[in-house]
Amino acid sequence: MEELGKSKSRNEAQEELEYYIKVNHLEAHDKLPSERELSELFNINRSTLRAAIIRMIDEGKLYKVTGSGNFVQEPKIVRNLNNLDSLTELVRGFGKEISSKVIHASVIEANKQIMKKLKLPLGTKVFQLLRVRLIDNEPFALETSFIEYQRFEGIEKYDFEKVSLYKTLKDVYGVDIVKGQEKLTLTYATEEEAELLSITYESPLFFISGTAEDNEDRPVEYFRSVVRPDKMKFSSILVKKSQEEMQRG
Amino acid sequence: MEELGKSKSRNEAQEELEYYIKVNHLEAHDKLPSERELSELFNINRSTLRAAIIRMIDEGKLYKVTGSGNFVQEPKIVRNLNNLDSLTELVRGFGKEISSKVIHASVIEANKQIMKKLKLPLGTKVFQLLRVRLIDNEPFALETSFIEYQRFEGIEKYDFEKVSLYKTLKDVYGVDIVKGQEKLTLTYATEEEAELLSITYESPLFFISGTAEDNEDRPVEYFRSVVRPDKMKFSSILVKKSQEEMQRG
Repeated sequence: MEELGKSKSRNEAQEELEYYIKVNHLEAHDKLPSERELSELFNINRSTLRAAIIRMIDEGKLYKVTGSGNFVQEPKIVRNLNNLDSLTELVRGFGKEISSKVIHASVIEANKQIMKKLKLPLGTKVFQLLRVRLIDNEPFALETSFIEYQRFEGIEKYDFEKVSLYKTLKDVYGVDIVKGQEKLTLTYATEEEAELLSITYESPLFFISGTAEDNEDRPVEYFRSVVRPDKMKFSSILVKKSQEEMQRG
Repeated sequence: MEELGKSKSRNEAQEELEYYIKVNHLEAHDKLPSERELSELFNINRSTLRAAIIRMIDEGKLYKVTGSGNFVQEPKIVRNLNNLDSLTELVRGFGKEISSKVIHASVIEANKQIMKKLKLPLGTKVFQLLRVRLIDNEPFALETSFIEYQRFEGIEKYDFEKVSLYKTLKDVYGVDIVKGQEKLTLTYATEEEAELLSITYESPLFFISGTAEDNEDRPVEYFRSVVRPDKMKFSSILVKKSQEEMQRG
């Protein structure tokens, strides 16, 4: 095959392939043409195409079945980073079912960092809830919530595999979470996180932490979660600061 | 040393250490106490403490100088994911200087995917600009911008190492970018990206792509950037969907 101009990069190969999947309306679990066919179709050399496919596997866009070929992966859940609405509703919107597995739920005396986030004096009791969140029975996030105990006494009696945390705060205690702020960074899975999320030790994970508040600006929850990047992506609306009412500072 | 209760996890060790840095007002390039001293202070075993330090190095919070010890890293730049304002202003707010290195700037015939994002017919010319962004001379992001050429004829003559892209669009062409949307996922550095960002091949990177629009909803720029997770983190304001005016769908 003749080289036409400069050879295409891995990024260009990936772009072509993503576009191919889109315009041909390939869906989750549809099989891609062979690597040979694709490299001819895109006029991209085999090793570059293969590198693009490997990256798309890492990014959670494709998966490989040895001896069979490359397949389109399930679409990621898109979470709007400005939206506090429940994960349950979000995931249902994608036609999927979300479930939770409670790993740990107890009333503790939290450390200084957590108390500071909840604006509580040291020594105050806090309800700590650690849940694995699953979509269609596959783990995608590990969430830790810290809730002031005195305000929500008895909360440890609820089964948060069956009921939603925010719904319980609202229906049982009459506290509605209406706003919050969060930070997003990258971290690497500990052994425990790797096991609970069915991933490799030290895999990169999104780390999201923040607080959620009621309508009187009182912190209700301090949360920390690690999220599998192959299962979820984030969206955000951009506005100029001068026109942004919700701006932080 | 006697074990008091169950031994602490790597996450707890990291929390203790982060809190220690905060309350003792340790700043960038301040040296931490020795690992022996810290493990006694926190009552954490040495190997757990060391694992926490390694993760904090990976996360860009500490750095190690062989033969000397562990030091506090420069704070990350925090970008509000809702804020379209210029990176220049943002970085200056952190008391740092931003600069750009233009890797590529030319008028091209863009592919179908890019044209779709810019809502332009195929065959239309596009100005493509690839810049490495640096903070205090250290590369932290690689940004590719695609701009409709017909509307901004002559734009290739500007030196985007010296002038801001958005400022040029506004001052020279009278087009003000006022809104947009973006998506954030995780990717892994290609060889070219690794070289330009001074990182290891296949290191995890934030991948951010989106469009920026003028006040008539007309797309002006389609952008794609990869960002070093040890240099930048993201913040976002959360609001309930029902109260969120800027909600996407």
